Amino acid sequence: MKLIFRKELTFSTNQHEDLIDITREINAVISESDINNGVCNIYIPHATSGIVVNENDDPNIIIDVLSVLRKLAPKGSFLHDRIDGNGDAHVKSAIVGPSESIPFENSRLLLGTWQSVMLCEFDGPKYSRKVIVTLIG
Amino acid sequence: MKLIFRKELTFSTNQHEDLIDITREINAVISESDINNGVCNIYIPHATSGIVVNENDDPNIIIDVLSVLRKLAPKGSFLHDRIDGNGDAHVKSAIVGPSESIPFENSRLLLGTWQSVMLCEFDGPKYSRKVIVTLIG
Amino acid sequence: MKLIFRKELTFSTNQHEDLIDITREINAVISESDINNGVCNIYIPHATSGIVVNENDDPNIIIDVLSVLRKLAPKGSFLHDRIDGNGDAHVKSAIVGPSESIPFENSRLLLGTWQSVMLCEFDGPKYSRKVIVTLIG
Repeated sequence: MKLIFRKELTFSTNQHEDLIDITREINAVISESDINNGVCNIYIPHATSGIVVNENDDPNIIIDVLSVLRKLAPKGSFLHDRIDGNGDAHVKSAIVGPSESIPFENSRLLLGTWQSVMLCEFDGPKYSRKVIVTLIG
Repeated sequence: MKLIFRKELTFSTNQHEDLIDITREINAVISESDINNGVCNIYIPHATSGIVVNENDDPNIIIDVLSVLRKLAPKGSFLHDRIDGNGDAHVKSAIVGPSESIPFENSRLLLGTWQSVMLCEFDGPKYSRKVIVTLIG
Repeated sequence: MKLIFRKELTFSTNQHEDLIDITREINAVISESDINNGVCNIYIPHATSGIVVNENDDPNIIIDVLSVLRKLAPKGSFLHDRIDGNGDAHVKSAIVGPSESIPFENSRLLLGTWQSVMLCEFDGPKYSRKVIVTLIG
């Protein structure tokens, strides 16, 4: 029995800020593995992005979440902006965090009915955002 | 040796917003398993709730945390409110996050003296809030 | 093969608030173990601190993150302050969270180029802040 399974996924982002539903792609990684039961670690190795779990049925929730983060960390108000103008994206990324760990069983994440896993882009658009999926079973 | 142990717990919430200490119930799951040493993943499968770790000795800390989240995401100010009036709860849930992963040893979480695990209710009261506890050892 | 490896690290903090890069020390724990591939859980057992992943190349990012958290939870404005004056530190700790879980391979965390793991001190200086590192492979 294999106890660890890892796969790196890549996503393109089209907006400067966005939340992108990656639930289907993560469930596909779980299906591809031969691990039936465990915990799935979803990790984004970028310092201006993050991983969030919430509802994606009403697309307004994405807009609501981004608007609160924008109010919390307004663009153009940071010391780091002198270097590359994306201080707000780093602060949002630090607060949201780069990972979530979610239980899975029978080839699917044990998400609630209204939960999706979403990649948070705070400094896009970016051609290539990696997400590292690691299953432990 | 069993390497994975999972149990689903259910809690009722009585207030519209609350933080409820679930440390005792999680330690009971660890005691019930035969895994002595590992990491405990605590996951809440609801999009208007969360998991937080902090002090519960002074009950004012719960009030303080909720007041900051309420200031950050004020009720009634979101696009999603047109659908079911709980946009603020979704935003708080997205920022707090649905899970924590905590090491355990000898049948207990390795919490600090002043740390408790708390279920965050942002859209209650709710008759049934599930928490999925997964031990990996 | 050992599947679990745990080590407790200790750090001193010199400022009242600070983010301290602990990436090197965590990679040293991974090197010391004989686990080649897995997930590293980094957990801080204190209720006025946290773990954040972000950039540490420009030290201004630390200042930017702390300034946003200070605006969100201003010192001296909390009910808990009547007891020991650090209500703001508890709120910051609750929002940032006490842990991160990061994949590792070949004796190193799979961090992005601009990511460091940082201990967040919100109520220092403190002589001894523990960090529990648990590897699952």
